[in-house]
Amino acid sequence: MGQPANSRWKEKEQMKPNSKLTLFWFVVVALAFAATVTHAQDPLPSWNDTATKKAIITFVDRVTKEGSPDFVAPAERIAVFDNDGTLWAEQPMYFQGLFLVDRVKALAPQHPEWRTKEPFASLLKGDMKGVAAAGEKGAIEMLAATHTGMTTEEFEQMMRDWTATAKHPKTGRLYTEMVYQPMLELLAYLRANGFKTFIVSGGGIEFMRPWTEKVYGIPPEQVVGSSVKLKFEMRDGRPVLVKLPAVDLNDDKEGKPVGIQSRIGRRPIAAFGNSDGDLQMLQWTTAGSGPRFALIVHHTDTEREWAYDRKSHVGKLDKAWDEAVAKGWTVVDMKNDWKRVFPWE
Amino acid sequence: MGQPANSRWKEKEQMKPNSKLTLFWFVVVALAFAATVTHAQDPLPSWNDTATKKAIITFVDRVTKEGSPDFVAPAERIAVFDNDGTLWAEQPMYFQGLFLVDRVKALAPQHPEWRTKEPFASLLKGDMKGVAAAGEKGAIEMLAATHTGMTTEEFEQMMRDWTATAKHPKTGRLYTEMVYQPMLELLAYLRANGFKTFIVSGGGIEFMRPWTEKVYGIPPEQVVGSSVKLKFEMRDGRPVLVKLPAVDLNDDKEGKPVGIQSRIGRRPIAAFGNSDGDLQMLQWTTAGSGPRFALIVHHTDTEREWAYDRKSHVGKLDKAWDEAVAKGWTVVDMKNDWKRVFPWE
Repeated sequence: MGQPANSRWKEKEQMKPNSKLTLFWFVVVALAFAATVTHAQDPLPSWNDTATKKAIITFVDRVTKEGSPDFVAPAERIAVFDNDGTLWAEQPMYFQGLFLVDRVKALAPQHPEWRTKEPFASLLKGDMKGVAAAGEKGAIEMLAATHTGMTTEEFEQMMRDWTATAKHPKTGRLYTEMVYQPMLELLAYLRANGFKTFIVSGGGIEFMRPWTEKVYGIPPEQVVGSSVKLKFEMRDGRPVLVKLPAVDLNDDKEGKPVGIQSRIGRRPIAAFGNSDGDLQMLQWTTAGSGPRFALIVHHTDTEREWAYDRKSHVGKLDKAWDEAVAKGWTVVDMKNDWKRVFPWE
Repeated sequence: MGQPANSRWKEKEQMKPNSKLTLFWFVVVALAFAATVTHAQDPLPSWNDTATKKAIITFVDRVTKEGSPDFVAPAERIAVFDNDGTLWAEQPMYFQGLFLVDRVKALAPQHPEWRTKEPFASLLKGDMKGVAAAGEKGAIEMLAATHTGMTTEEFEQMMRDWTATAKHPKTGRLYTEMVYQPMLELLAYLRANGFKTFIVSGGGIEFMRPWTEKVYGIPPEQVVGSSVKLKFEMRDGRPVLVKLPAVDLNDDKEGKPVGIQSRIGRRPIAAFGNSDGDLQMLQWTTAGSGPRFALIVHHTDTEREWAYDRKSHVGKLDKAWDEAVAKGWTVVDMKNDWKRVFPWE
């Protein structure tokens, strides 16, 4: 079928925008592809291209290059991470402390005696100075009241409920959203390079395990933490484990190498922390032979997160910082080394 | 070039043996291939085709079949194994006891006081009744003298030396050769089906870890065992962990579910034991929801291994056997269910 000349011209006119569209889509696809390639080449996109990022990548390249004298067999590629202040935030106080406050409030109706008993009375009135005045003894009493006496299954359910609903007082985010995007990338990068990633935290082991797999990709059996003693009991013919008010492992400071040896049984080749509580873990890790990596997250970002170190009541970084400088450990300057802090930014 | 008739005939003659050889090799290759196929089809070649083997395979098929209501995600496929009497032999006494005897003898020159101090004096004279008379207190003293006071690295080296040289008193084999071939196959079969295999043993954790990876394919971080408390110390600027004479975890009976919860943090879906010391681990495992598997190795083979159960001073199987029968757990009759006991048979 023949077409009139003007019809043909119109067709050409119509083609023009089409051609532009084609070109447009070609550019979009090309850019998308380029972005994919760039992303594939950069395993740590939320880290700025500083010496810190370079130090991490250099170490991983060294230990994974077969035939190199620094090559480490995959089975020995154990990496340990502190949790509070290293994988997730710890301000205005350790999140487990905020959980404790929520639990005391939730349990208060069943404990009328708390209205006059310290430190419960102060806590229920929101008087944190009064709580602090009760000291370690008071803290232990509150821990016992909120973290023990129930079965491990009951506590796990409590944790699942809390992490699904409780919000951070400053950001209004779920606590499991208060995790550091650069560290999530680092965990994934190490695992992609044959590392087995563990948490070694002063926080409670049963406080972390219900959510670490989903949030960090770290399964419960790779979580080491502080714990209370457990008691095996039969209840109506069914076995349960009851959490007792007695410390089993205080997985902080000198307790971290103990936790590593007793729960993991191999010396890590890489350790990541942020405070003096991690010093012995970093010492223990770097004292092994062959290539070792030690990293400290220094909180320097008042805008996007918090800035604190030597004088902080939470996550104090003093001695470990000095030792990091003396020994040439890698220190993250959060403000300058991290392109993004939280996943939702 | 032409050939004389007799040369051609010779060629034919020569072909005959060649043809036979070809046929011979074809048969060999075919048989080898068939054997490979048979082997590939039978993941448990050292198990006789009894109900026990069928029960194991049926369970694994159930939990690994995607889309089935009994399907268990790989992350939840935790299998726990007792060690003494389940993965390796435990007669004439727990091998750790034989290690202790060797250590007391090796250390005796440095301890002249042991010549008159019980139970060391009896042990050094080979008077095991005298050793037994010292009871639990005596046993703890000997354990403290042989298993504590040194660093974890020193103890690990001691273990490596002992397992490389010490021989079983009856078979003359290395202790690490006293392992059960059918159980090695079972471990490999479970792992090939996405299971993570753990040891949960009353034996010492530092006694097992130096060799479990090589012998069972179970890495140190998947070994749970009895342990003593550890102390972090700096020695000449180098951190060490010292083994203290104080129990940290008694990973036997009620201690096994405690060890599972505190070290693994997930309830296993399959548990393998052989004595009353495993009863609570089997109860804890089978009390979870969904498909569960519990197996007890019953030592019934006086010819190839040992036969013992209700009245044995080692690996007593009494209450756990009754419960196995009552609850329909799988009980291995070693004599009839195992084609082969040890790898070197």
